[in-house]
Amino acid sequence: MKPIKIGIAGTGVVASGVVKVLQRNQEEITRRAGRGIEVAVVSSRTRAKAEALVGQNVLIVDDIMDVARHPDIDIVVETMGGYEPARSFVLEAIAHGKHVVTANKALLAEHGNEIFAAAQAKGVTVVFEAAVAGGIPVIKSLREGLSANRIEWIAGIINGTTNFILTQMREKGWTFTDALKVAQELGYAEADPTFDVEGVDAAHKITLMSALAFGVPINFKAASIEGISQLAATDITYAEKFGYRIKLLGITKRTPEGIELRVHPTLIPDSRLIANVNGVMNAVLVKGDAVGATLYYGAGAGAEPTGSSVIADLIDVTRTITADPEHRVPHLAFQPDALANIPMLPLSSVKTRYYLRLTVQDRTGVLADITRILANHDISVDAMLQTEVDDATQQTHIVIMTHVSLEASIDTAVLQIKTLDTVSGEVVKLRVEELG
Amino acid sequence: MKPIKIGIAGTGVVASGVVKVLQRNQEEITRRAGRGIEVAVVSSRTRAKAEALVGQNVLIVDDIMDVARHPDIDIVVETMGGYEPARSFVLEAIAHGKHVVTANKALLAEHGNEIFAAAQAKGVTVVFEAAVAGGIPVIKSLREGLSANRIEWIAGIINGTTNFILTQMREKGWTFTDALKVAQELGYAEADPTFDVEGVDAAHKITLMSALAFGVPINFKAASIEGISQLAATDITYAEKFGYRIKLLGITKRTPEGIELRVHPTLIPDSRLIANVNGVMNAVLVKGDAVGATLYYGAGAGAEPTGSSVIADLIDVTRTITADPEHRVPHLAFQPDALANIPMLPLSSVKTRYYLRLTVQDRTGVLADITRILANHDISVDAMLQTEVDDATQQTHIVIMTHVSLEASIDTAVLQIKTLDTVSGEVVKLRVEELG
Repeated sequence: MKPIKIGIAGTGVVASGVVKVLQRNQEEITRRAGRGIEVAVVSSRTRAKAEALVGQNVLIVDDIMDVARHPDIDIVVETMGGYEPARSFVLEAIAHGKHVVTANKALLAEHGNEIFAAAQAKGVTVVFEAAVAGGIPVIKSLREGLSANRIEWIAGIINGTTNFILTQMREKGWTFTDALKVAQELGYAEADPTFDVEGVDAAHKITLMSALAFGVPINFKAASIEGISQLAATDITYAEKFGYRIKLLGITKRTPEGIELRVHPTLIPDSRLIANVNGVMNAVLVKGDAVGATLYYGAGAGAEPTGSSVIADLIDVTRTITADPEHRVPHLAFQPDALANIPMLPLSSVKTRYYLRLTVQDRTGVLADITRILANHDISVDAMLQTEVDDATQQTHIVIMTHVSLEASIDTAVLQIKTLDTVSGEVVKLRVEELG
Repeated sequence: MKPIKIGIAGTGVVASGVVKVLQRNQEEITRRAGRGIEVAVVSSRTRAKAEALVGQNVLIVDDIMDVARHPDIDIVVETMGGYEPARSFVLEAIAHGKHVVTANKALLAEHGNEIFAAAQAKGVTVVFEAAVAGGIPVIKSLREGLSANRIEWIAGIINGTTNFILTQMREKGWTFTDALKVAQELGYAEADPTFDVEGVDAAHKITLMSALAFGVPINFKAASIEGISQLAATDITYAEKFGYRIKLLGITKRTPEGIELRVHPTLIPDSRLIANVNGVMNAVLVKGDAVGATLYYGAGAGAEPTGSSVIADLIDVTRTITADPEHRVPHLAFQPDALANIPMLPLSSVKTRYYLRLTVQDRTGVLADITRILANHDISVDAMLQTEVDDATQQTHIVIMTHVSLEASIDTAVLQIKTLDTVSGEVVKLRVEELG
């Protein structure tokens, strides 16, 4: 059978991973797919860079739209990242009847509904395994492997930069700032690390998984996002005393009231496998009603892991090209006319356990005041820890682990606690997930 | 679209999981598959049992062949287990143009090549996600999710019974016999536990994964199999002192000389995620050249986890029914005319690290004799531990961790060591895998 021809927009890290792995594993890939996969067109504004990547026998064009429209190719690979011109490129390719493979989570989290609708109307496929958790085939697992299940929740370490920083903070006792600096030196964090450290990247990814898990439209605006830049090393230490690790988790959960969608630093029991996922590695824990908990672990970024997922998508599309469109795997796991209209819940309606750290004056009655306020808001205390008094300031830390409580109640209680004249500074609030 | 109709052979644990989950999640499954999946025929020799499972509106037949031949159904589910009549049933169903879903690893490990050839000739699909690692979608990950990779090796905890026993032996210091008894009481081990504890079940599963990973025919006869019934709790304790856990692993590895395929108790560094997979849980670690190491974790058995995989396969088949046969995912991951002819290696050519435990008389020169023999066979010692002398017997244990050595050399050296008159009893030999 003739090789399938593809076009690639971009010549960055992802593109280079795709091209290298396609070349190196050409023979195995052909044995699997039943036909070769051949790069026919690449777009680049610097011809030399593109030639270095694909050699001289591949057509190199300046304008990405010449990839989107090229008559010889069946599939385009979008590796540019960002919102524009990626969005216009993808829509143009769809309009020209091309299937699309992309690693662009930001694009899909913001414009996925528009893009998938266009693809559906045109009868082409847009696939995005590489957009979540790099090389780990977790989109496929959610969309196909667990398709018998009512998914209950997903919790994922889906940003390698922040997991590396948290691992360093815990293992070396570093501050966030120090750990970030090292991450930047090692190339694990970008010069402007905002998207990663503030949880936006993780939020893009959990938003996509939430749609796939629950059969709802993509709704990035519903995500509550809190990063790790404000996280104190102290809290990592205290959490450890209770037997917990702190991880930046993307969490989405189905409750009787609606869907939770949130990213925040989270305490996890240290006996859980996912609590022991360290460094830049990613892991996604999925709870289904039939299968129970399953976990998917691997490299969440990098040229070849990302290339691995892009090429798996290319092979999938190659294989399904002869199936009529309504028999292909649906973009969002559920058939487009069967998406549900389940409300997305605000953070205030989350019910979980909480970790609170207060800085207080060492005076009689402080603890009584605090516990009375908590009790008044139906918050019961599971465990508590008080540090020794600092001689200079006469201050001490009180760390409280609550039983399951309503976030809105916690917030009101914290506001009242802050008005106590024995309590100084911020009250640190972190969420705890048992993931059992 | 009209629901797809299926027939089920058998009314045991797997069948009940399939039926229960199909009923409970009917709406979600239809939203995903684009059409319903309806049980139309069930075979059972005891009508009451079948009625209890599927109710009175489903056709119940005595003869499994009436399922295989029933004109109304598109897909049959084989849940009987064992070699016969499962093999005849599956071949008959294929001959009648039915797609087949099975959880039967023994059947496929022994007769898979024959079955897949028959299916290929008839243009139908035989799928078996549930045959390996229960509810974990690891077959799909190997066959589709990692299809860009040259797979280097797979190492899996793929038998829950033995993992439960090993976990108890380590945590409670029990002997194998005691732990087995508890496993039987809890229903985790069968009355005749041979297939599980002697590693045969794990060997069936790693044989299937080996074929999928390397694109070779299924070759169960090439598997070297060693179970855990001879494993002493002592060795679990000693291994721990070196920083290792002992797990029953199914391992398959591609080397320049050929393919290794083996099941045996294995020392794994305790820092590895897979070393911390406890109880009846399963996990499979896959190393690909592009993606690096990925791990898949979850329930390896049970009615609903197995049902989860069977139904995922049903949905897949439902979706691919309109694709022409050569565009479907190949049975063994690679196209049937592209299977490779790579030699399967005997255990004697394995190169890894070894753990040796010797019982010796506490006499001068013993250690010199042993290390000389090892050196003569090019075996170098990485670490050693000697226990205190037992006053009654004047004996002591010497535990040796070697550097990477050839199994054939280890075996010759051990034979020579046994002839030393200071060495008494068996020399325990266990393999070590770094899985790095």
